[in-house]
Amino acid sequence: MPQNIYDDLEFFQKYITFPRQVKGLHGAPEWPNIRAIIPNLTGKRVVDLGCGFGWFARWARSNGANKVLALDVSENMLERARLDTKDKAIEYRIQDLEELQLPGASFDFAYSALALHYIEDFGRLVRIVYNALTPGSHFIFEIEHPIYMAAYTAEWIEYRGRKTWPVNAYAIEGERKNDWLVKGVLKYHRTMSMTINILIAAGFSIEQVQEYSPSQQDFSTAPELAPQIERPIFLVVSCRKSLRASSS
Amino acid sequence: MPQNIYDDLEFFQKYITFPRQVKGLHGAPEWPNIRAIIPNLTGKRVVDLGCGFGWFARWARSNGANKVLALDVSENMLERARLDTKDKAIEYRIQDLEELQLPGASFDFAYSALALHYIEDFGRLVRIVYNALTPGSHFIFEIEHPIYMAAYTAEWIEYRGRKTWPVNAYAIEGERKNDWLVKGVLKYHRTMSMTINILIAAGFSIEQVQEYSPSQQDFSTAPELAPQIERPIFLVVSCRKSLRASSS
Repeated sequence: MPQNIYDDLEFFQKYITFPRQVKGLHGAPEWPNIRAIIPNLTGKRVVDLGCGFGWFARWARSNGANKVLALDVSENMLERARLDTKDKAIEYRIQDLEELQLPGASFDFAYSALALHYIEDFGRLVRIVYNALTPGSHFIFEIEHPIYMAAYTAEWIEYRGRKTWPVNAYAIEGERKNDWLVKGVLKYHRTMSMTINILIAAGFSIEQVQEYSPSQQDFSTAPELAPQIERPIFLVVSCRKSLRASSS
Repeated sequence: MPQNIYDDLEFFQKYITFPRQVKGLHGAPEWPNIRAIIPNLTGKRVVDLGCGFGWFARWARSNGANKVLALDVSENMLERARLDTKDKAIEYRIQDLEELQLPGASFDFAYSALALHYIEDFGRLVRIVYNALTPGSHFIFEIEHPIYMAAYTAEWIEYRGRKTWPVNAYAIEGERKNDWLVKGVLKYHRTMSMTINILIAAGFSIEQVQEYSPSQQDFSTAPELAPQIERPIFLVVSCRKSLRASSS
């Protein structure tokens, strides 16, 4: 089971002060780019892997989703999500994603924001998601970017007068322990190629890849984002199960 | 037109001493991984974008290709390629890839090794290649990896005791001038996402992505490759025109 850092009180109390936890989706600068590639959710059954406070689950419902299964490993997160949600069509469920099982062809859209880099067995999870989707359905997920995650520990350095991100151990996949709010947060680094090849091997076709960098508008309204131009922090992948896939 | 560094005498005289120019494909540690994903070439019409000394063109013919159109911007390269080739089914042709035109549906496989990072308008070239391929055909190319190319100038540094590659300006696409054998070699940096999204937008489906890192065998037979585990230097993409694409 992944390290459940979100039920660590010290971590949680710091975490909930983050803009993307206070403001929800609009606190995430990459959200407009992700929203732009989310298919029409009208009438769709949605599964959200790592739902946190339920921001996306509620957004999906307000954008036409028929129902949402919202999964998270943290009771803290789910408790707050339930408090913030008055909607019987959203089901919150505690779930270790390493152990996820879903019925075949039971969802029409799968989503995950900043959860899957905590998962060790990405291949297993992708196969479960693929099997759970109906033909033609999309799976869109956001993870920490492998450039950001590669080094065992990394922070900004100066190199030839420019803010620079150190990359090493890129090809060495597996555990990374970082100090983020608290000491020793456990994540799993995978290369870009491994992430993409696992999706393709499961049967998905890649539809779009995004590496967030600040827009001109971000530069003027949120100048603190400027360093994100130096190296990508988030990777978003949109992939799709073929319309001609056998539904299982 | 791309900077034709290969017709610079100083550059060329240093370049031809490189293992991959002396030993051909077997001098490239990533070649076994690329070879493993090249489809059966029997009877196929092949185009090689940036053929250099013609190593791949000759390999393709000895692996069943019907004919090969081998293009390069450098007269130096082509002169040597012609000297080394006794095969009427390989046509060497001088070609600025920025200006490439190819007849529709006239090739069954497209290949490019370490040439397309010299090209400014990657989107145009990809559309030309897509149009030139028959439905179901593959396009496999190798370029310098965006992690390797991002910084305006970069070399190995030490960071927390580990050989480390500095990344900055990743989201700033366009010209990079590096000193490689001679001063001011001009290349074009594109992000990983841009490279992949351009292929998809042209109609290709992504089949596999490779980021070379040394194998256990490389470690024992070529220990000088060990640092390549720290950051990828080459990116290989295999993509395919749909069998159901209209042939044009």
